[in-house]
Amino acid sequence: MDTWMRFMLNDGGVVFGRVEGAYLHEYESLDQPVPTGVVLSTRALTPLAPCAPGKVVALWNNYHALAAKLDKPVPTHPLFLLKPAGSVIGSDAPIHRPASYAGKIVYEGELGIVIGRRCRDADVEEAAQAIFGYTLVNDVTAADLLNENPHFPQWCRAKGFDTFCCIGPAIVSGFDWQSANLVTMLDGVERQNYPLSDMVFSPAEQVSLISQDLTLEPGDVIACGTSVGVGSIKDGATVSISIDGIGTLRNTLNAAQATASLASKPGVVEGLV
Amino acid sequence: MDTWMRFMLNDGGVVFGRVEGAYLHEYESLDQPVPTGVVLSTRALTPLAPCAPGKVVALWNNYHALAAKLDKPVPTHPLFLLKPAGSVIGSDAPIHRPASYAGKIVYEGELGIVIGRRCRDADVEEAAQAIFGYTLVNDVTAADLLNENPHFPQWCRAKGFDTFCCIGPAIVSGFDWQSANLVTMLDGVERQNYPLSDMVFSPAEQVSLISQDLTLEPGDVIACGTSVGVGSIKDGATVSISIDGIGTLRNTLNAAQATASLASKPGVVEGLV
Repeated sequence: MDTWMRFMLNDGGVVFGRVEGAYLHEYESLDQPVPTGVVLSTRALTPLAPCAPGKVVALWNNYHALAAKLDKPVPTHPLFLLKPAGSVIGSDAPIHRPASYAGKIVYEGELGIVIGRRCRDADVEEAAQAIFGYTLVNDVTAADLLNENPHFPQWCRAKGFDTFCCIGPAIVSGFDWQSANLVTMLDGVERQNYPLSDMVFSPAEQVSLISQDLTLEPGDVIACGTSVGVGSIKDGATVSISIDGIGTLRNTLNAAQATASLASKPGVVEGLV
Repeated sequence: MDTWMRFMLNDGGVVFGRVEGAYLHEYESLDQPVPTGVVLSTRALTPLAPCAPGKVVALWNNYHALAAKLDKPVPTHPLFLLKPAGSVIGSDAPIHRPASYAGKIVYEGELGIVIGRRCRDADVEEAAQAIFGYTLVNDVTAADLLNENPHFPQWCRAKGFDTFCCIGPAIVSGFDWQSANLVTMLDGVERQNYPLSDMVFSPAEQVSLISQDLTLEPGDVIACGTSVGVGSIKDGATVSISIDGIGTLRNTLNAAQATASLASKPGVVEGLV
């Protein structure tokens, strides 16, 4: 098992690498895991989400216990929505309540699969090889929006707000998910504690089946769905999601603030044309 | 009105700029529209989709005529799903039938809004300023998948396949959408012909309201939804979508082919860590 993290440098640059104790051994990138020879003290670095997914594929109804509680049949193909790249934050970054929304905000503790290689129409064996490692996801939802319109369930809107996809703190490669439990604490009180072995589609099956629908790229994340124990987060409350061997993803929900409009500021150049 | 296109060079490089006759006047990028001074003959270049969106926001039920036909009330907020970046192709590129899907594939001719500036919680005036220009979109759907599972409508899956988001051929800035009609032809037979003025949410209203949900980045595309006349595409058929002043987006549906798996090939490095 290796632990991989991403950090911001003081100059705004981003480094990715393998963490050993208090040191980061820098690597070229997640899909080119070649060491650069550079070693940095992590104490001088700001942690980020451990990857920068182009898209997050988020599953619904992927645990037998939750399907039983919802009284829904187990699906025959992964049921998913997409969360945009702009919704991603790392551990310890705040979740922001949208300025336009005063309703219920819900946590969902989930295992995250991080893709290491481009993957299309992969069989299960190829899919297993395409998994770089595992991380934790808090798949945050503005629950009152989901069925606000009776004719169109708004999955992408309710789950796509900025900061509504917490990922981290690290990616662990070579992790044995089959014997692990996921635990979600809300302000220190346990709310979820479920075995990952209760999944309907295993990680390799998810990657294989989803790769028949869309090409998965290195750094993309599949949020494997949650199980029972989902609940709402009050403003100011902290959600901590843990799996032994991966670590703890911790995020606090901030109350809405008047947001300065960015419309007149220059945009992001990277990757545009 | 200016016409903007993106092309691939013989060496795989990508250029973006303003087209005048048979020449491309290269610009830095869509959100930094500064001329580089380079002028290229477009005859030596391969056209691409005119922008490379990080995400495509695709609206449902945004025309009064379609809402009436569906007998659904007009929404009070844009109803949308997300199409992934990997689904985007340009004009004249083939739409590929997924290897795993033998069902009905449907065209939807739509106006596309191309974002020029980062945009969050924008009012309508700021939103109007954040629009770089307009393009055409064929929002392709694997229609039989939409309601395949009665408990979860699969919008992202049905509309997210590789090549299922045709965009192009150009972006036109300063375009007056209010007096224009969109025409869709299927193998030369007119199937859609509707006035853009029948939209429920105008482009600036869409950008403003959607920017309350998620941050829009330069190059992102909003597909404004379609109106009446949607229909299925047989394998080998060609869909042509036109708006006077923007041009014609033309794509042919190819039958499914055995696809070589990409799982064991190196992935994309760009923008990963």
